[in-house]
Amino acid sequence: VAERGISPVLIIGSGLIGTSLGLSLRRVGTDVLLDDRDEAKRDEAVAMGAGRPWDGSTQPQIVILAVPPSEVAKRIAEAAQQFPDATLTDVASVKSRIVQEALAAGVPAERYIGGHPMAGRELSGPSAARADLVDDRLWILTPLEHTDPTRLTQIKELVRTCGGVVREMSPAQHDQAVALVSHVPQVVASALAAQLRDAGEDQVVIAGQGLRDMTRIAASNVDLWSDILLGNAGPISDALVGLTGTLDETRKALAATAAGGPANRDAVQEVLLAGRDGQARIPGKHGAQASPYVEVAVMVEDKPGQLAQLVVAAGEAGINLEDVRIEHVLGRPSGLIELAVRPENGARLEAVLRSLGFDVRT
Amino acid sequence: VAERGISPVLIIGSGLIGTSLGLSLRRVGTDVLLDDRDEAKRDEAVAMGAGRPWDGSTQPQIVILAVPPSEVAKRIAEAAQQFPDATLTDVASVKSRIVQEALAAGVPAERYIGGHPMAGRELSGPSAARADLVDDRLWILTPLEHTDPTRLTQIKELVRTCGGVVREMSPAQHDQAVALVSHVPQVVASALAAQLRDAGEDQVVIAGQGLRDMTRIAASNVDLWSDILLGNAGPISDALVGLTGTLDETRKALAATAAGGPANRDAVQEVLLAGRDGQARIPGKHGAQASPYVEVAVMVEDKPGQLAQLVVAAGEAGINLEDVRIEHVLGRPSGLIELAVRPENGARLEAVLRSLGFDVRT
Repeated sequence: VAERGISPVLIIGSGLIGTSLGLSLRRVGTDVLLDDRDEAKRDEAVAMGAGRPWDGSTQPQIVILAVPPSEVAKRIAEAAQQFPDATLTDVASVKSRIVQEALAAGVPAERYIGGHPMAGRELSGPSAARADLVDDRLWILTPLEHTDPTRLTQIKELVRTCGGVVREMSPAQHDQAVALVSHVPQVVASALAAQLRDAGEDQVVIAGQGLRDMTRIAASNVDLWSDILLGNAGPISDALVGLTGTLDETRKALAATAAGGPANRDAVQEVLLAGRDGQARIPGKHGAQASPYVEVAVMVEDKPGQLAQLVVAAGEAGINLEDVRIEHVLGRPSGLIELAVRPENGARLEAVLRSLGFDVRT
Repeated sequence: VAERGISPVLIIGSGLIGTSLGLSLRRVGTDVLLDDRDEAKRDEAVAMGAGRPWDGSTQPQIVILAVPPSEVAKRIAEAAQQFPDATLTDVASVKSRIVQEALAAGVPAERYIGGHPMAGRELSGPSAARADLVDDRLWILTPLEHTDPTRLTQIKELVRTCGGVVREMSPAQHDQAVALVSHVPQVVASALAAQLRDAGEDQVVIAGQGLRDMTRIAASNVDLWSDILLGNAGPISDALVGLTGTLDETRKALAATAAGGPANRDAVQEVLLAGRDGQARIPGKHGAQASPYVEVAVMVEDKPGQLAQLVVAAGEAGINLEDVRIEHVLGRPSGLIELAVRPENGARLEAVLRSLGFDVRT
């Protein structure tokens, strides 16, 4: 069987993901054709260098559907008709339902391979696109029983060319996994933040970093997330059963304590311990294990140039800063800067900064 | 009525908070006496400069109980006996129950004023203490009907001397507020993380930043949080009713959709919209409104000195960096650095960096 090439690729949809994939493929010279019902968006993607406008006739090797989840099945069925030899894929964050609907609409199973690059930004639209958006990110593929193996190889090559890392799952496995690690957390963030809508000013004013971190994604795009939640309704509602069960048990234990019963310390500790164990299983950035860095904290004046002196000192000592966190202290002319470095560099960085007169905190 | 001074202050408990308060008071020369049943901890706090060991006889003006929530009431009652003229306060994150138990144990209402500095770290113990821990943080005081006004003035002076910002509430108001913005989020983070404990490796490996942010506090100290949750059981279980109600409605809407019913788009959008509105009410760091900064993203090589060049350039242009975020791209010799600056400086920083040949992303 002859290998299938990936060029030209037709990307339908010039949003954040479609444009980013175009940019990533253009890095290595792949011929990228762009199409979007909104010509202004497509033109913006073209202007950014994500590809050239589809001319209405070229037959692509691969068609990537980068449209909202609720439109994928219909648009993929159209593409299957229009491009009878192309391999078809998509980038939607739900899979079972889209695969089902696509097959029902006549999309041939042998040349459709569902995909989901695990990358995104809080921003949307072509202007937010980046050539490196999916670099080293997991990109889940959901081949089916009847998928043509040469076409699967071809789509894997596409993923690698875009910079992604292939992981194969069944559509159902994919949907359960994203329900647990992505969709349920979105529902929880929204539900938690919703409790603040009618809270008193005296209450929200004391909110701390914990609540801010836990509700950040509640600011996400409502239309896109409605699509995602409804598109993966089954696995999400299943996963929510476990979560609401845990919360209800905790609530009952606390209510019984509040009603004058004995302190239900065991029940409360159980959820805290289970949470600690579960949290420890989450890998660090990009699938790595949790960060092995140590932090060196320095109090500096909150004015231009202070941070520069710190990082210059680190650079001159040959120490790479793995992360930097700046904590401002409102209304005071000082701020705390936390520098994360590899453990073997921690003591040395501290010594270097102290020798330069920096106010290093431990 | 003569004013009451604050010096000497006796701090009972040499953990993170007790030691930090000692350090903050020592900055301005207040006489600080330290006591802890664990002499090694007290000695560590003394060695750090947080105060001198209590000599067993000096009568302090103020006694701060900085012990775990479950011990506060009992220890405050002991202190009330031992120091018949001292003003008493504590730093526990629950109030109604402690006040009730303290009064029941004979603590005189006129000289006990509950307190709660809204500050903490993920670390604990005297070695994690910082003189600036409560600088510009809210410090809630819960005076009672019979509180002596001169003693309230005295404790307010203590708070200001430590660097904190006083906010008065009733014990019940305090407990409802912290239940909503701190204790329920802790329960939710733990319950959410608990769902991962028995998840498959294929599932946890795809976890992203959203889940990491939402479960970070699930790694908190289990004993301390058991104390807090049981100590504020009533307001927390009340607040959990609203949250679990919202989650249950969402779960039912999704389950009905999954069972083949119509897509319950309205119900799903309702929780997402309410979450977006609630999230927008959370103030930024330190009680300020949400960050007004803009971000300038730069792709750099992942090696020492790159960050330095960036911040030096910003400093030379007189632009203060409000925040810095470094995103590494695993296995690639490049990283994305996001610099947050005030809106009026955004375009200028971009221009400055571009003119220096930096790869600025938009």
